[in-house]
Amino acid sequence: MGKDRISVGIIGFGTVGSGTARILLENRDVLSRRSGFDIALKRIADKDIARDRGLKVPDGVLTAKAEDVLNDPGIDIVVELVGGIHPAKDFILGAIRNRKHVVTANKALLATEGNEIFGEAEKKGVAVGFEASVAGGIPIIKVLREGLVANNITAIYGIINGTSNYILTKMTEEKVEFSEALSEAQRLGYAEADPTFDVEGVDSAHKLTILSSLAYGIPLSFNEVYKEGITNITPRDIEFAAELGYKVKLLAIAKEAGGEIEMRVHPTMIPGEYLISKVDGVFNAIYVEGDAVGSTLYYGRGAGDMPTGSAVVADIMDIGRSIFSGGAVRPVGFPVVGANRRIRKIEDVESMYYFRFSAMDQPGVLSRIAGILGGNNISIASVIQKGRRIGGSVPLVVLTHRAKEKDVLRSVREIDNLPVVSDKTMFIRVEAKEE
Amino acid sequence: MGKDRISVGIIGFGTVGSGTARILLENRDVLSRRSGFDIALKRIADKDIARDRGLKVPDGVLTAKAEDVLNDPGIDIVVELVGGIHPAKDFILGAIRNRKHVVTANKALLATEGNEIFGEAEKKGVAVGFEASVAGGIPIIKVLREGLVANNITAIYGIINGTSNYILTKMTEEKVEFSEALSEAQRLGYAEADPTFDVEGVDSAHKLTILSSLAYGIPLSFNEVYKEGITNITPRDIEFAAELGYKVKLLAIAKEAGGEIEMRVHPTMIPGEYLISKVDGVFNAIYVEGDAVGSTLYYGRGAGDMPTGSAVVADIMDIGRSIFSGGAVRPVGFPVVGANRRIRKIEDVESMYYFRFSAMDQPGVLSRIAGILGGNNISIASVIQKGRRIGGSVPLVVLTHRAKEKDVLRSVREIDNLPVVSDKTMFIRVEAKEE
Repeated sequence: MGKDRISVGIIGFGTVGSGTARILLENRDVLSRRSGFDIALKRIADKDIARDRGLKVPDGVLTAKAEDVLNDPGIDIVVELVGGIHPAKDFILGAIRNRKHVVTANKALLATEGNEIFGEAEKKGVAVGFEASVAGGIPIIKVLREGLVANNITAIYGIINGTSNYILTKMTEEKVEFSEALSEAQRLGYAEADPTFDVEGVDSAHKLTILSSLAYGIPLSFNEVYKEGITNITPRDIEFAAELGYKVKLLAIAKEAGGEIEMRVHPTMIPGEYLISKVDGVFNAIYVEGDAVGSTLYYGRGAGDMPTGSAVVADIMDIGRSIFSGGAVRPVGFPVVGANRRIRKIEDVESMYYFRFSAMDQPGVLSRIAGILGGNNISIASVIQKGRRIGGSVPLVVLTHRAKEKDVLRSVREIDNLPVVSDKTMFIRVEAKEE
Repeated sequence: MGKDRISVGIIGFGTVGSGTARILLENRDVLSRRSGFDIALKRIADKDIARDRGLKVPDGVLTAKAEDVLNDPGIDIVVELVGGIHPAKDFILGAIRNRKHVVTANKALLATEGNEIFGEAEKKGVAVGFEASVAGGIPIIKVLREGLVANNITAIYGIINGTSNYILTKMTEEKVEFSEALSEAQRLGYAEADPTFDVEGVDSAHKLTILSSLAYGIPLSFNEVYKEGITNITPRDIEFAAELGYKVKLLAIAKEAGGEIEMRVHPTMIPGEYLISKVDGVFNAIYVEGDAVGSTLYYGRGAGDMPTGSAVVADIMDIGRSIFSGGAVRPVGFPVVGANRRIRKIEDVESMYYFRFSAMDQPGVLSRIAGILGGNNISIASVIQKGRRIGGSVPLVVLTHRAKEKDVLRSVREIDNLPVVSDKTMFIRVEAKEE
């Protein structure tokens, strides 16, 4: 047997740091009764140790120097909750160098620098826990890596950015423009002053990078994820989607198709009867399909001090259990079992599509548009044309059967050049079982 | 480090046995690349080894004798998939006696005899994996025990019997009687010839026993679970529920309330906007609320060869990892950390209630019923009274605020004795945040 007291040091006493500290202090008793070992919160480092976090921290725990955590020989697990790339990466590499296990919630860092970090951890034989890096309190990392380990994962569809989901929900329920929903999200603290990472799909892409690596055994490949945000979505599109029986969600999608892996983040229309389309507000949900288990879904809060702290502490307990049981720690990296699998370029992705064309109110427009689509191997599934004028033109809405993205892009270029088309064409990818 | 080949023997080559064997054989390669060790399916024992399961099993694996699995010194993990109490219990105890780890999907056995089984396993230092015993492929055991380990669990609401959920869904969508929906379920293979365990809540209670023990650290206490099935639910009640904005589901509920634990299985009305109320057909879902993580939900197939096999193989991989890493296996039993917590009797449970009274079409009936409810501390939240006659009487539907079950039972006795009430009162507990 190993030790029966595990000592933890936290670097970063912000939102998630406070939640983690609160759980370790307030639930210490139940944690130790469940595990058989004790978790001691030994140090918390933060540049600002004066601010009141509404939490009673024992004397001598707080320090302004990260080194007090990194170089303390008594600390077994270093929890990095600083966020961002630097100095977070240096803290993590420093901890690994000192042969300490690491727990982090830092998806941006792992998605972009994770291959190096996991490589270093492997060399030193320490664990890097990252449950909190995706979907807050939902234990999706554990689910993918252990719960569904028996499965070849066929598809992942995730609502993994609460800010975007809140904005789309508000646009749907109150028929307001993106900008108004964003302001409200900012007012409520759901969106940052610079919302780029959230609304442009970057945050979702960080998380998708991590999920895809786990699911498909590929190296972390953030740069190969296709990213498209929600800033161009209008309440008109959401309404048309509803008329067709669909909801609009910012989905992070990973799929295996023809031996290749698709990784893409973009606004997506999904049938209103799918469970994941009913996930509203700041909540997250991840739909995972495996060859044995079939359809599964995991739902919960994707952010916040306590939900994310719940995931951080789960990692601490897992690593603690390895130390306590005296066994080797779980291999920390992503077992690269499918390294030779190609990432599919977005141009080669196949999907169904929603188009909203801004057509002049003239005869023959539909036939010209349909002609271009047909000429590019895109076949129409349904059409909505109504008298509603938007800025001098009439919206013409078309839903297609499966088509190739490159054919869609070519069609849109041709159509947008038609004199009878007055504005840029809007298109949204549609994910649904084709009838 | 321990061994790098783990040998498995399966007893019971039925539905789940076939699914498990199929995954071990067909996904062997990916399993070993993910884990670093190899899982060999060494023996499969079944009384009937002649029947074709549509699966190519290597020569020498099949045997008609369970002893060939139990007594094979080369087998590390025995998978019991026979079901029922005997001889399944003897197989499991035999395996433990021979210091083999055990994996089982047998909820009935664990719920009723689990304390003994886990006690024996603890003595011998072997693991008993039971992920497959609750909710098929959904890794809810792992989620509760590891993913949410940081949390005090405040509530669990589970749709964990696919048969009942299929029947209620069909009654809701097609407005048919219970008996008709049951026949259809039987025709489709979703219900057994004797459906008692499923439709009377026994199967859900078995599973709830296991979930409650994990969540609250109490011994397995099947006999203290309140059980009520769905056989009395009528399409009228489902329709009234819909008018009030509710769905009717067979829920397995575990809650902590005032230091006591509630464990109950019964038809339940839940608001139509709750995500769990949208879980239809044979699917399962478990809503888990923790003090740190807040609301979470887990959804998937609760039965079937491959989904359940997915959970069995996840357990095999977990135990294999312990053997491979050379560490102590995870403590197998339920850490009994709350053994002194009292199970609340159903009479003491508080809930909101739906009543359907069969009132004679006479003036003053509502006031007499309301008088009895008020006299028993039950306050009315809303009333539906319509002209629809059912068998000579008019249904009077009442929704209450929170009330004690014992007051409800007393009221119903008094009301059913009224001369103006022509038939037994129907009531359904309502779970919702009270406004």
